[in-house]
Amino acid sequence: MWLGITKTVRAINPANHLSAMETKLDNKELLIRFIDEVWNAGSVEASDKYIAPTYTIHHDPGDPWDKKELDLPGYKERVRVSRAPFPDQRFSIEEILSEGNRVVITWNWVATHKGDIPGFPATGKQIRMSGATVYYIEEGRFTGHWQITDRLGVYAQLRQGVAQA
Amino acid sequence: MWLGITKTVRAINPANHLSAMETKLDNKELLIRFIDEVWNAGSVEASDKYIAPTYTIHHDPGDPWDKKELDLPGYKERVRVSRAPFPDQRFSIEEILSEGNRVVITWNWVATHKGDIPGFPATGKQIRMSGATVYYIEEGRFTGHWQITDRLGVYAQLRQGVAQA
Repeated sequence: MWLGITKTVRAINPANHLSAMETKLDNKELLIRFIDEVWNAGSVEASDKYIAPTYTIHHDPGDPWDKKELDLPGYKERVRVSRAPFPDQRFSIEEILSEGNRVVITWNWVATHKGDIPGFPATGKQIRMSGATVYYIEEGRFTGHWQITDRLGVYAQLRQGVAQA
Repeated sequence: MWLGITKTVRAINPANHLSAMETKLDNKELLIRFIDEVWNAGSVEASDKYIAPTYTIHHDPGDPWDKKELDLPGYKERVRVSRAPFPDQRFSIEEILSEGNRVVITWNWVATHKGDIPGFPATGKQIRMSGATVYYIEEGRFTGHWQITDRLGVYAQLRQGVAQA
């Protein structure tokens, strides 16, 4: 009870400036580490440290899990399936902005097309993609995202790769 | 000279907190007004109030002006050409975050396909798009952007519209 009240006071006291600054830095740092560990290095089980029990994909056209609510095993499955054709994939963050419970990144992505995708057998070619993602955070865990990727650019590269194979 | 020095002191003094907060609110408000006047209402000449003498499109896959530096007449031409097939187009801002000289928005867009596009004659159908844009600001003017749009989603709708026409 006493802890709950203390937390509320910290949150609503506008004079508590350093604490707000620290939270902001933490959210950016949290996102950078998450992208690096889970998506770049492929440490799927590290999702436990970052992902909330319910993770909502608010908007992500082209993603098979668009509009879905995932539990932790569901999120891990999404990482595994998404990474399978592109095991060396790497996101590099272009811009990162943070406000309140939101962190937004713009990013570039590069990967070798090493596994089959329906309609696009593996070619060993390098594929590039760019995108922007807003992540939502509650109590140090990501609760969901809103994302746009340049999927037309990716398909053009995949088609070209298959045509040349 | 005296004014110049004052501005520098305001910018580098970390204690000048209210001023930083005001700048931040201003950049968001500036972007909201710009989108509304220039892109939604189509007041192309209002670009004079918002756009810097040199405007750089850092990244905007699918945009005919991607990677280009535009002067003010060039920017106005881009607005005119982009709006021509979709004269009732409307951006609605989903999220807006601001930090330093950057403001990022995620957005939804809706328009009626009223004018011809190469390969896609006008159908009168409603088209939806979503995207995310980082705007860069210097001295109260937009100096460029980095953007991702779901252009695959747009092409799918355009193709369907033409097939049904």
